[in-house]
Amino acid sequence: MIKVALLTIGSELLDGRTLDTNVNYLAKGLSQNSFSVANILTCADQIDSIVDALTFAYQQDISLVITSGGLGPTTDDLTREAVAKFFQTGLIIDPEELAKQKKRYADRGREFPESNIKQATFPIGSQIIKNNFGTAPSFLVNKGNRWLISLPGVPSELKGIFQEEILPLISRIFTPEKIAQKRFVFFNIPESALNDQVSKLKLSEEIEVIYETSFPENKLILKSKNLPELQRASEQVLSLPAKEFLITCGEQSMLEVIHQELIASKQTLAIAESCTGGLIGKTLTDQAGSSEYFLGSIVSYHNSVKENILEVSSKIITQYGAVSAECALEMALGVRKKLQSDIGLSVTGIAGPTSGNEKPPVGTVYIGYADNNRSFTKEIFFSGTREQVRRFASYYTLGLLLKSNPKS
Amino acid sequence: MIKVALLTIGSELLDGRTLDTNVNYLAKGLSQNSFSVANILTCADQIDSIVDALTFAYQQDISLVITSGGLGPTTDDLTREAVAKFFQTGLIIDPEELAKQKKRYADRGREFPESNIKQATFPIGSQIIKNNFGTAPSFLVNKGNRWLISLPGVPSELKGIFQEEILPLISRIFTPEKIAQKRFVFFNIPESALNDQVSKLKLSEEIEVIYETSFPENKLILKSKNLPELQRASEQVLSLPAKEFLITCGEQSMLEVIHQELIASKQTLAIAESCTGGLIGKTLTDQAGSSEYFLGSIVSYHNSVKENILEVSSKIITQYGAVSAECALEMALGVRKKLQSDIGLSVTGIAGPTSGNEKPPVGTVYIGYADNNRSFTKEIFFSGTREQVRRFASYYTLGLLLKSNPKS
Repeated sequence: MIKVALLTIGSELLDGRTLDTNVNYLAKGLSQNSFSVANILTCADQIDSIVDALTFAYQQDISLVITSGGLGPTTDDLTREAVAKFFQTGLIIDPEELAKQKKRYADRGREFPESNIKQATFPIGSQIIKNNFGTAPSFLVNKGNRWLISLPGVPSELKGIFQEEILPLISRIFTPEKIAQKRFVFFNIPESALNDQVSKLKLSEEIEVIYETSFPENKLILKSKNLPELQRASEQVLSLPAKEFLITCGEQSMLEVIHQELIASKQTLAIAESCTGGLIGKTLTDQAGSSEYFLGSIVSYHNSVKENILEVSSKIITQYGAVSAECALEMALGVRKKLQSDIGLSVTGIAGPTSGNEKPPVGTVYIGYADNNRSFTKEIFFSGTREQVRRFASYYTLGLLLKSNPKS
Repeated sequence: MIKVALLTIGSELLDGRTLDTNVNYLAKGLSQNSFSVANILTCADQIDSIVDALTFAYQQDISLVITSGGLGPTTDDLTREAVAKFFQTGLIIDPEELAKQKKRYADRGREFPESNIKQATFPIGSQIIKNNFGTAPSFLVNKGNRWLISLPGVPSELKGIFQEEILPLISRIFTPEKIAQKRFVFFNIPESALNDQVSKLKLSEEIEVIYETSFPENKLILKSKNLPELQRASEQVLSLPAKEFLITCGEQSMLEVIHQELIASKQTLAIAESCTGGLIGKTLTDQAGSSEYFLGSIVSYHNSVKENILEVSSKIITQYGAVSAECALEMALGVRKKLQSDIGLSVTGIAGPTSGNEKPPVGTVYIGYADNNRSFTKEIFFSGTREQVRRFASYYTLGLLLKSNPKS
């Protein structure tokens, strides 16, 4: 595998002001494209620190270093200078790039700030890589068997250039062996239980098995250069008892699958939320185009809203409590009726951190489902923080929708 | 300042499976306690890689290296071995710690797995640091002017030990000079505009000025060892025209301030959301105890919900459109009436990425406010992605609540 080191540059990373999401994005993208990241470094915007970090980075058979940050126009942007110093060369202004930068200001009727000349300056001999997502171009330097690419630190620019320019470029330069992968998303099964089941399969040695947890999902990824073996291993995974907890299989997220299925089946959806406070509606509407099926929701945080808007009878609340299967059922039926949707979903629970004396324990959640043919409830329990209980409950509700949804 | 390097160990960080939040947590905590993080490194669970990284880490006057990860009981947990090799010493089993580990299993009636002996093993001469948050103890090694602390990689354990044990310990060892800070949270003013105004103040050289952007907030932080100068600088900042965009001042977030004020003034709140899909309700209910004032919300994504539940007249929607000041006003009044709250808030807008032909452009959002004495609307525009428009609109709505809220 081609070995890569990542170097992110910026004082805001060292004092914790900014969480570095760039290295994770690059590491994932490189690894998915069959490069191996061997080291990650972060250093300050200082020429000597950057040179020291580059010197360390190229140890251990590293072919390529990718840097991020320090390409802006201000005096503390020093990546160009440090790269030139490391490769023992100078800096040069690229006339074509300078003309572009000047034109950008002229087009807006603004004066060109002298400090912006810096953004048209590059280490001598470097290849300029265009930036369709911002103003600072990226560049590639090669000397002997050492390659270096410098990307801007702004996450949206870095991600755009990486996908559009860098991945095709380094795939041409290094032609890494293609590794195919299969992805399985599980929910509500611990990673260790999944691991135990997968271990018993005794998969071929040509299959690399990777677990990835991003709460509340657990992902299993199989990688191999051998496509028939990969196909066979996937079928083995689908034969496991864990299949009951499989949410999606492939590159799509659960939300994308729900989105497509509801649009395809021309069904509408309404939700009654209590402990999740609006999170389920927010999650569904993260997807553009969700207005095709999502009519809306009633966030009935206070019992008066459950009674007055959702028409949950006060008897139910007095007798069983607002956190009960009975209440969840009435909420689902009520929201379906009031919003005139095909499907009604509901959630009521105790997210914590504390629960009233007579209520069920923190982490108890009831989910209700109602469509034209049937209605039912489900009791779940999740032990965790307030945020985790709410995320778990939202995910569970949407998973239930996916599994219960009568496709047209 | 005492210089620190951080080293995180784990293959899951190098291939992007896990986003490293530990280094950010440590960097922030160290920096707030007057330590300076000079380098951050990430390497694989391999003895030689760890030793190489430690060798690099102690360059440049580093007094202390903090590692995270690789303290578990399995064969790929190699931090203890690597630290011992780096300090040219051996490993030793600590009998007291071993007894504790065995007792933990005995108490649960389980057999002690041999591999767990590893968790009672330490580099010779190290000081054991107890772990109240998990099973792997942390340890401190000192040789000459080189100090090293190894923490477990599980974020909840790392955070707990860092606060409870490490911060007091290193503050005793290194006694860093205390630096005080003042924090100002701004919204809806670009960082560069804020910067221009602050630059003109010509603050004392004893004041360090830090900008921190976490969309949609811009934070300004002033740091100094000189308390009277810091106080004077804070007053200067509060005299800026930017004060108009100041949301909070101090360590509290906007949400925490809203939470306190609504509880103190005994007012209740109801929200009518459209383009935000539930995000505002979700944000308010992130705070435990929000049920004291938040009654609920109507997410009227589809116009039928605006008309049938919020009683927005169909004339308004036909004449002005669902994304209009007129509709926002009716939504705020409607939700206040239907949910019987003291304050009604509403949001309707075009989050994008596309807008219908006859609608206003993507990024246009109307906010409505209604209480017992008055009602009004506000038109805002934000050019950005769907997610950004939704987050900006939510934040703006809550900011408007904070500024408009008639305190009791």
